[in-house]
Amino acid sequence: MTAQFDRIALIGIGLIGSSLAHDIKRLGLAKEVVIATRSAETLKRAEELALGDRYTTSSAEAVEGADLVIVSVPVGASESVAKEIAGSLKPGAIVTDVGSTKASVIAQMQPHMPPHVHFIPGHPLAGTEKSGPDAGFPGLFEGRWCIFTPVADTDPAALNTLRQFWETLGSKVDEMDPEHHDKVLAIVSHLPHIIAYNIVGTADDLETVTESEVIKYSASGFRDFTRLAASDPTMWRDVCLHNKDAILEMLARFSEDLAYLQRAIRWGEGDKIFELFTRTRAVRRSIIQAGQDVDAPDFGRPHALDKKP
Amino acid sequence: MTAQFDRIALIGIGLIGSSLAHDIKRLGLAKEVVIATRSAETLKRAEELALGDRYTTSSAEAVEGADLVIVSVPVGASESVAKEIAGSLKPGAIVTDVGSTKASVIAQMQPHMPPHVHFIPGHPLAGTEKSGPDAGFPGLFEGRWCIFTPVADTDPAALNTLRQFWETLGSKVDEMDPEHHDKVLAIVSHLPHIIAYNIVGTADDLETVTESEVIKYSASGFRDFTRLAASDPTMWRDVCLHNKDAILEMLARFSEDLAYLQRAIRWGEGDKIFELFTRTRAVRRSIIQAGQDVDAPDFGRPHALDKKP
Repeated sequence: MTAQFDRIALIGIGLIGSSLAHDIKRLGLAKEVVIATRSAETLKRAEELALGDRYTTSSAEAVEGADLVIVSVPVGASESVAKEIAGSLKPGAIVTDVGSTKASVIAQMQPHMPPHVHFIPGHPLAGTEKSGPDAGFPGLFEGRWCIFTPVADTDPAALNTLRQFWETLGSKVDEMDPEHHDKVLAIVSHLPHIIAYNIVGTADDLETVTESEVIKYSASGFRDFTRLAASDPTMWRDVCLHNKDAILEMLARFSEDLAYLQRAIRWGEGDKIFELFTRTRAVRRSIIQAGQDVDAPDFGRPHALDKKP
Repeated sequence: MTAQFDRIALIGIGLIGSSLAHDIKRLGLAKEVVIATRSAETLKRAEELALGDRYTTSSAEAVEGADLVIVSVPVGASESVAKEIAGSLKPGAIVTDVGSTKASVIAQMQPHMPPHVHFIPGHPLAGTEKSGPDAGFPGLFEGRWCIFTPVADTDPAALNTLRQFWETLGSKVDEMDPEHHDKVLAIVSHLPHIIAYNIVGTADDLETVTESEVIKYSASGFRDFTRLAASDPTMWRDVCLHNKDAILEMLARFSEDLAYLQRAIRWGEGDKIFELFTRTRAVRRSIIQAGQDVDAPDFGRPHALDKKP
């Protein structure tokens, strides 16, 4: 099998970058993989895990001669990476990213991209609550969506090449304009994470219920939120700061709806509560029918967890 | 092995009632199990599943001669069940329940309990998002907590008998006063469910993002909430109506914290956001260390879900 690319540069080697590394190696998608990260410690760990062929703390050095450059850093670092790599990019190279916000990443990166490269913003909707180079694994992108938000005048051939790359990893590719992407992700991803972080913070701050009680009895609902609230703080801080408008809009709607529900609880309006609780059940069914979650009760968690070693 | 009880009456045969039925049979805890539910259809289904030995739509008839009566109905139905069974209870019988709120259940049931029975309110912290007699399964209570909130002058021998019953099912038993139980559950269970229902409702109501987009991209966080929001609407409406004060207190705190976080997002205060997002990560670690959730990424969900048949 011929490698699709002669050289791929991975800038950033966290959960997403390291999962890409695993898949590129497994599927033979590059003759050479060069890994760059600012942290010497993380770079050393990537090398111990044998994630690539060459390792450097210099993004500029990493992108030299690369046909494909994938930037997988917290979105707030996009501009500094763009500036650093701009002068070293090979003519004809494809530069893409995996950031969870797209309008901001485009604003940060595009002005620095030389005219002789193809800049194609992307976002694989994949991940877990774990982070760092040890968190990556082969197959993370299998069956998941990858959303491109192409800028004006994107070369169709380059777009097609990048599409093939993600499809080889098992992803399904969609295209959207960046503003719509940011609205969609604000509701399906950003708001859920923010709400999860918030409720875990609220529980952590109580005086009348101890932290040990919260932990001990967490299986009755609370623990579901702690998974999202264990996600990488730097990544999610940056998402909050770089998709501000869409997030604030969704937060306003959420709070308005919560005030309505709270009022119904205060005034004992069981019919309003029941109507909402019935409608939401149908959403779950649609998600399961669409193959977007497991139907097994309790996410298929094993029972008698406490007895596990 | 000698059966612990001659006759157990199960009033209500949903997820909890039917799981109890499975375990009582599996562990040989009663010579006879009598099942009562108001719905003829549900009763028929319980009989098809062979969950008990006798079946009736009359709770009064079901409790006749029973040594142990377990009421597993939505908490709002507690008083009507108490009234219905009061005159038929056998002297010395233990009457317990499994309701998610305790002060309200006590207020509804205790005034109707004759002096010759032992009323011991209880709450097994176990369940899934599924409901009805088909949702039950053996082992649901294994390794889970069951909280008793005994009323004044409870007979220690009766308390001990009920404790042994739950321990035989694999549960760990705690005791608490009912008001404290209701506060603890408000934060670890009721608020998470209410928030989950609310965010799913918010997503369902958007105009700028279609419902099909919400469903299609739900794996990026949103789907976690849809599980709790698929829980039984009647049960959860009743929880909201019957633990109002504690829930309103927790909702007020949650909203206050969310306003603080929202303001930090609006004003770009990354340090405040980062501080919260880091602190919540530690809560997740404690929950895993306490054996209250799986450590596997993404709750151990299988990958490439979409490819499953």
